[in-house]
Amino acid sequence: MAHKIAILGASGYTGAEMVRLVSTHPNMEIVALTADRKAGQSMAQVFPHLRHLDLPLLVKIGEVDFSGVDLVVCALPHATSQSVISALPRDMKVVDLSADFRLRDAAAYEKWYGQPHSAMDLQAEAVYGLPEFYRDQIREARIVACTGCNAATGQFALRPLIGAGVIDLDDIIIDLKAAVSGAGRSLKENLLHAELSEGYHAYGVGGVHRHLGEFDQEFSLIAGRPVSVQFTPHLIPANRGILATIYVSGDAQTVHDTLAQAYADEPFLQVLPFGEHPSTRHVRGSNFVHIGVVGDRRPGRTIVIAALDNLTKGSSGMAMQNANLMLGEEETTGLMLAPVFP
Amino acid sequence: MAHKIAILGASGYTGAEMVRLVSTHPNMEIVALTADRKAGQSMAQVFPHLRHLDLPLLVKIGEVDFSGVDLVVCALPHATSQSVISALPRDMKVVDLSADFRLRDAAAYEKWYGQPHSAMDLQAEAVYGLPEFYRDQIREARIVACTGCNAATGQFALRPLIGAGVIDLDDIIIDLKAAVSGAGRSLKENLLHAELSEGYHAYGVGGVHRHLGEFDQEFSLIAGRPVSVQFTPHLIPANRGILATIYVSGDAQTVHDTLAQAYADEPFLQVLPFGEHPSTRHVRGSNFVHIGVVGDRRPGRTIVIAALDNLTKGSSGMAMQNANLMLGEEETTGLMLAPVFP
Amino acid sequence: MAHKIAILGASGYTGAEMVRLVSTHPNMEIVALTADRKAGQSMAQVFPHLRHLDLPLLVKIGEVDFSGVDLVVCALPHATSQSVISALPRDMKVVDLSADFRLRDAAAYEKWYGQPHSAMDLQAEAVYGLPEFYRDQIREARIVACTGCNAATGQFALRPLIGAGVIDLDDIIIDLKAAVSGAGRSLKENLLHAELSEGYHAYGVGGVHRHLGEFDQEFSLIAGRPVSVQFTPHLIPANRGILATIYVSGDAQTVHDTLAQAYADEPFLQVLPFGEHPSTRHVRGSNFVHIGVVGDRRPGRTIVIAALDNLTKGSSGMAMQNANLMLGEEETTGLMLAPVFP
Amino acid sequence: MAHKIAILGASGYTGAEMVRLVSTHPNMEIVALTADRKAGQSMAQVFPHLRHLDLPLLVKIGEVDFSGVDLVVCALPHATSQSVISALPRDMKVVDLSADFRLRDAAAYEKWYGQPHSAMDLQAEAVYGLPEFYRDQIREARIVACTGCNAATGQFALRPLIGAGVIDLDDIIIDLKAAVSGAGRSLKENLLHAELSEGYHAYGVGGVHRHLGEFDQEFSLIAGRPVSVQFTPHLIPANRGILATIYVSGDAQTVHDTLAQAYADEPFLQVLPFGEHPSTRHVRGSNFVHIGVVGDRRPGRTIVIAALDNLTKGSSGMAMQNANLMLGEEETTGLMLAPVFP
Repeated sequence: MAHKIAILGASGYTGAEMVRLVSTHPNMEIVALTADRKAGQSMAQVFPHLRHLDLPLLVKIGEVDFSGVDLVVCALPHATSQSVISALPRDMKVVDLSADFRLRDAAAYEKWYGQPHSAMDLQAEAVYGLPEFYRDQIREARIVACTGCNAATGQFALRPLIGAGVIDLDDIIIDLKAAVSGAGRSLKENLLHAELSEGYHAYGVGGVHRHLGEFDQEFSLIAGRPVSVQFTPHLIPANRGILATIYVSGDAQTVHDTLAQAYADEPFLQVLPFGEHPSTRHVRGSNFVHIGVVGDRRPGRTIVIAALDNLTKGSSGMAMQNANLMLGEEETTGLMLAPVFP
Repeated sequence: MAHKIAILGASGYTGAEMVRLVSTHPNMEIVALTADRKAGQSMAQVFPHLRHLDLPLLVKIGEVDFSGVDLVVCALPHATSQSVISALPRDMKVVDLSADFRLRDAAAYEKWYGQPHSAMDLQAEAVYGLPEFYRDQIREARIVACTGCNAATGQFALRPLIGAGVIDLDDIIIDLKAAVSGAGRSLKENLLHAELSEGYHAYGVGGVHRHLGEFDQEFSLIAGRPVSVQFTPHLIPANRGILATIYVSGDAQTVHDTLAQAYADEPFLQVLPFGEHPSTRHVRGSNFVHIGVVGDRRPGRTIVIAALDNLTKGSSGMAMQNANLMLGEEETTGLMLAPVFP
Repeated sequence: MAHKIAILGASGYTGAEMVRLVSTHPNMEIVALTADRKAGQSMAQVFPHLRHLDLPLLVKIGEVDFSGVDLVVCALPHATSQSVISALPRDMKVVDLSADFRLRDAAAYEKWYGQPHSAMDLQAEAVYGLPEFYRDQIREARIVACTGCNAATGQFALRPLIGAGVIDLDDIIIDLKAAVSGAGRSLKENLLHAELSEGYHAYGVGGVHRHLGEFDQEFSLIAGRPVSVQFTPHLIPANRGILATIYVSGDAQTVHDTLAQAYADEPFLQVLPFGEHPSTRHVRGSNFVHIGVVGDRRPGRTIVIAALDNLTKGSSGMAMQNANLMLGEEETTGLMLAPVFP
Repeated sequence: MAHKIAILGASGYTGAEMVRLVSTHPNMEIVALTADRKAGQSMAQVFPHLRHLDLPLLVKIGEVDFSGVDLVVCALPHATSQSVISALPRDMKVVDLSADFRLRDAAAYEKWYGQPHSAMDLQAEAVYGLPEFYRDQIREARIVACTGCNAATGQFALRPLIGAGVIDLDDIIIDLKAAVSGAGRSLKENLLHAELSEGYHAYGVGGVHRHLGEFDQEFSLIAGRPVSVQFTPHLIPANRGILATIYVSGDAQTVHDTLAQAYADEPFLQVLPFGEHPSTRHVRGSNFVHIGVVGDRRPGRTIVIAALDNLTKGSSGMAMQNANLMLGEEETTGLMLAPVFP
């Protein structure tokens, strides 16, 4: 029998991507979709690309009958998420796509998100939702906080290297290039086609991007001491994709071998042959991550490049992977879709 | 047991799209992939986005053992196709993506393709592969000639209207906007990003585009008399998509009702509510066609707009739909993937 | 001595384009820039690409001292324009980029713009600002109402043909493809990069686009009887450019000759050799219009295709051309910039 | 009287850009254009955007009468350039856009370009054509070798810092994002729209990009000891633009002040206020460079970001700047065009 899924905040891009993925999952069924400002509309009105699907109307969260729901995917903005999730039945499984339950430390949350956390009791229940590294805890978790898309990309490249001690922990630079859908469907001038197309630029320069909170938490945890990376994201005129070019001190071959070994059995994490490196176009629309390692001409300097689709592996695909784990499904079910190229 | 599929000409975009679709089909398996100039390479080398799949190496056609093959998808250029298909075992089921077997009349083929047809005996066996209209013949066919992507788009909008006699047959204009992947992976100056991006233009203006051969053949057949449409394709800076804006003389509501009724039971053909019209972004990566009808301010003038993905519904998705029919599978199997947006 | 120019509404794309053009004009100088919501900011803050210029701060309109101004370029939204221009000194020369003074008939204005016109007295003073056709009146005019960008494109292709009586007046279809900057810098969902890039669609289908008011007025005036064209604009994923594909009944060679003769001495209107047709990429950033004529396979059917840059020749370039005429400058001064390609 | 300019290799993008710039220069005139494979064609056939100009036909180099030429702009591929320039009259002023005369050391040339240099005698005459730093020598030079576009971007950001000793010379990383026109008009699969649009990736990873030869030469010269930077270029789906994100060790405020002071009187080099950083869209089509400096959260770490248009300031605009210097013109003549945005 199909697991019954409710998606809260279904009028954004991650909500739509979640519906896309559930629609071909053999054992999941969408029973509720919410969107406060678009309540009463059909999903086909908000996202005409989903018009072939037989979906419930968009409603307000208060109108959802959660008694028949097996799992909630919460695709709401941070801060909203914590209050909404707090109000859900206390035994409801939740996959949260917001930033609200990613940081274990209340002070860190307040530092990066500019306001106190109002549901630290729930935070204690939450598991950091990077499935390749928290698989066992996710299986048992009630609340799973999906990793930020940029944070996930950097971690796929770096976690095994930090864990194995093969790179200098004080000399890590992540230069990241993100496509625009990661910014969501919000009406901002810099997201207009006329502004972005044929233009690209950095943002959050100097160590102020919020995903640094996740890097700091996770890398320090792995290393057993504070790790503080440099991180500069850039906005690129493309719809989907994240490419992280990472500069580390360490032997290139060792770096490659460490990653290849760590991910040998991971279905979604593809380490390319030594010396090759990825392109975002080869992961688009899929749950795969391509990782490449190249040695620099300067001995002891290595470049690691990771690519994924921010809406799939970076958000809703990761959410589906987590949902599969939480519901006792095969982790890859519904997620082995090949990338869409060109 | 899985049907065994060989794809000839697997190094082009339609070949890659075919592999993408087969890869999630529950009852199909790829047993051979050919690409003459890239023989010996892996598919991952030619198309890194397919690197997660366990696929046979690319070989030359002469190296394929067709004895274990249930169906061949031929994604070769026209002219090449006819000689290759002529050389296949005479009982081999073939879905051809080229133009070689679309035109029943040898003179028409020579007129539009500039050379005599060399396999008219096979042409007699071939069925025109527009599944929504030739479904029964396709089920029994040995060779199915998939419709051209532009020709398919126009036909989805116009066939029921011509059949029902609700529009003026001598006053049909198809203004079509095609994304660049329809031009294939060939190295031409006008397909370069620096040329096409931020630029768009018509091509094949004045009634010289080859897909007119298909329009003429099919529309005249339906009408029982010659029908000669105007057709102007344009190249648009996007990767996937065809949008056909079609100007007809006829009552808009009648036109809408005729299409809605004709496609009421078609899983892939979606007629939008009267007055709405489609966007290519809502069909991308999928096998769906969105069709809209709007009445003009000039009484008796009607605009029909149809959108599809040229590589999926316009090529490899259509090929898969035909293959399903020929192999006794459910027609929609492997094809209900939701569009990828954004 | 340089003419002193004030630009009202300088924070939109046409305002910025106007500044770009004035900045290399040898005899013009910007003395005031207004932007109500951004008053107090510098132009470099609003448009960093203009930061090398020494420009006045943005102010509110009420703060401008018009006594030292020779000509006002008004780049405000329609309706706002009429009230702002009404309040200007009555002898001030004005080039208006809005739609407010394009339609001579009050009823037509109300029909297309949904509200009564509040300054019909000024309308009587206004000249329709298509310089190639109203040159003499523009030289003497106080208020010049620049043509809409789509309306201009269609008129460049059709006016001489209607005037010469070489096409059927009741059988004109304009299928137009417009880049996104024509929609301005407004925050609308369909203008987001993630929505538009990789997607394109029609809008204003069925004869509801406001520029039809201009087509109706001008074509009927030329023909001496009502002319009612069909017009379907489409939004294309590019920043600048309009391509109008126009279907007419008439002899192709005659159509070509008529246009070539009409524009033989026009510096900005380039009629291509018979059978060739234009691309938007070849006019980008310039004041040129490229026009091509091709005969259809259906005898007596002809396709005329015109391309221009909506922000230059379609808006601010046209405004500059008009300003040159009004100020006694050479019409082409500051406008012979070559297109920017790629 | 106008200086007479010949452009060799006028059928590529830098050739076309050179024509665009010369066309509005008050004191230059194009007297010869060459393109071996397109000899006999008009520039309008090869570049329809230049069809409004009265230009000489494209000819083979051997057909040019150099006696009436004041200055040659050579836009040919490397290796070809050295043989062509060797065959020119020995007193002819030459601005070379190729890489052939950028490296003073024959061994360095052979290392980076894979073949011995065949005209080292001419190399001795050549001046490195970065006008802001070699202005005086360029005024007197016969041959000026324009800097590579990537190499120029990095040098604008770093030269003053290396010269002033305010950054650690052994810890410099240049992560560069280049638009596609920098790759020229060559027919390569990865430059196709369908490949590049919606995809981006690194290239020349690991210290193998040829522009490193220029970085090494110039930075070492300034520092008086070997300097070896890390450099990773990326290909971005845009037509024009280079954005270099540069990671250095040094005090951010000092870095900013050093750059601001160094470029205080430079008309084309714009240092943004401390903490701001540039976007490629704000320099497109212009000769300006925007440079921003931001301090990282990690004390002592600084990010410098520089943006320019690869075809203008990175190539043909720089060539024009050099030509102005060599011909005794004002350095900025014809180059103060505002960027084209959007």
